[in-house]
Amino acid sequence: MGEMKNIRLILQYEGTSYHGWQRQKDDLTIQGLIEDKLEMMTGKPVTLYASGRTDAGVHALHQVCNFSSETRIPPESIKNGLNSLLPDDIFIKKSEYVDPDFHSRYSARSKSYEYRILNTREIDIFSRRYAWHVREELNYSEMRKCLSFIIGKHDFSAFRSTGTSNVNPVREVFRAELSDPDELGRACFSFEAEGFLKHMVRNIVGTIVDAGKGKILSSDFLEILKSGDRKRAGYKAPPQGLFLTVVKY
Amino acid sequence: MGEMKNIRLILQYEGTSYHGWQRQKDDLTIQGLIEDKLEMMTGKPVTLYASGRTDAGVHALHQVCNFSSETRIPPESIKNGLNSLLPDDIFIKKSEYVDPDFHSRYSARSKSYEYRILNTREIDIFSRRYAWHVREELNYSEMRKCLSFIIGKHDFSAFRSTGTSNVNPVREVFRAELSDPDELGRACFSFEAEGFLKHMVRNIVGTIVDAGKGKILSSDFLEILKSGDRKRAGYKAPPQGLFLTVVKY
Repeated sequence: MGEMKNIRLILQYEGTSYHGWQRQKDDLTIQGLIEDKLEMMTGKPVTLYASGRTDAGVHALHQVCNFSSETRIPPESIKNGLNSLLPDDIFIKKSEYVDPDFHSRYSARSKSYEYRILNTREIDIFSRRYAWHVREELNYSEMRKCLSFIIGKHDFSAFRSTGTSNVNPVREVFRAELSDPDELGRACFSFEAEGFLKHMVRNIVGTIVDAGKGKILSSDFLEILKSGDRKRAGYKAPPQGLFLTVVKY
Repeated sequence: MGEMKNIRLILQYEGTSYHGWQRQKDDLTIQGLIEDKLEMMTGKPVTLYASGRTDAGVHALHQVCNFSSETRIPPESIKNGLNSLLPDDIFIKKSEYVDPDFHSRYSARSKSYEYRILNTREIDIFSRRYAWHVREELNYSEMRKCLSFIIGKHDFSAFRSTGTSNVNPVREVFRAELSDPDELGRACFSFEAEGFLKHMVRNIVGTIVDAGKGKILSSDFLEILKSGDRKRAGYKAPPQGLFLTVVKY
């Protein structure tokens, strides 16, 4: 054993088979699985800190986590060792030493998420684990109006999960966009913010799709945002369309 | 039972879990599975004729098959019944009556395939079942030169599987293209031809990627095509990058 180091991992995972990031007693989670493999490799229990905890079924193109360890295994070997021990729906892209005061969550300046929808009458089996299938015709310009209202600093209480702790509900959103559907009907929301409340992206997308369907107007969406009342927002969009795509430090 | 009808199905499938299209005695195949479900529904054994037999691991965005049956179940109910009985990696998009002389394979005027590659140093877990991962830098203009040589009517003996039957090896290729890689390194070959020999697309792509890597020149590719000698062509590209995309009648 050597001195204590702070080691950062950058990884990808497909969330389909997991009960989310956060370690749980009885269910298979991404954090639990990687911590177990790191304990096997280093001989000591390890605690991983991630930039954010993704829910069951949610994916990450780019997740960041870090842990402290006295191990002398070089970072490159930690990466290769983990990749040989982990199943093929988790992949460690990078492993490196970082400053002792680096923390994946508290040091993050911004996080980006994509939410993918498949907007076609028929399902597409290749999208079933990676998009929300919305059959109805959607008004894309009305949805973009809704997105314009969330840019900037707002109290997002209306779009956070009920029953969550009383953390500060104000977040600054830097970017909120929606692509036009491509020839196969695939469209993509993308968001960048200093941080997100629990289920915030899925609650926003669920409510905006209601506006796209004409169930509510973009002015109603603005009212809901201003009200801070979770009960007025729409249903939470399902997890499989959500991807954590970038974390900036 | 009523009179004999000719029923056409249009379907999608992800080939990952199957030993290809063609029915086999001991292995799970797409043809075998659908025939079994149709027998359950109609009470009689059914034989499916497909536009072409995809190999193990190969996908179809759009496959066409037909079968004869005296069943009185309306086509729309055949579709819905099959979709409720089949696993979620096979989806029947359409079911309809067609002329008695329609045959999915012999009536086809052209078929189109895509072959997707992921051209990045690192793997991407979301592409692992849907693309061939090529780490090396590729010369896209050299590969496009190769593609230009296969357009038109040629003897494709050099690119058909060894040990296949002595069918006519001449095929007319209408279209052979390669996209530039996108920001995630994904690129796509697309082919349209009156028909394809066994493993023809995968053998062509494998050899063209050799030209992309600089192992051979596009002039060598042309030589190989002209030689008609399978032993001179490159390795067959792996199945997971291949998609049957369109069949025209």
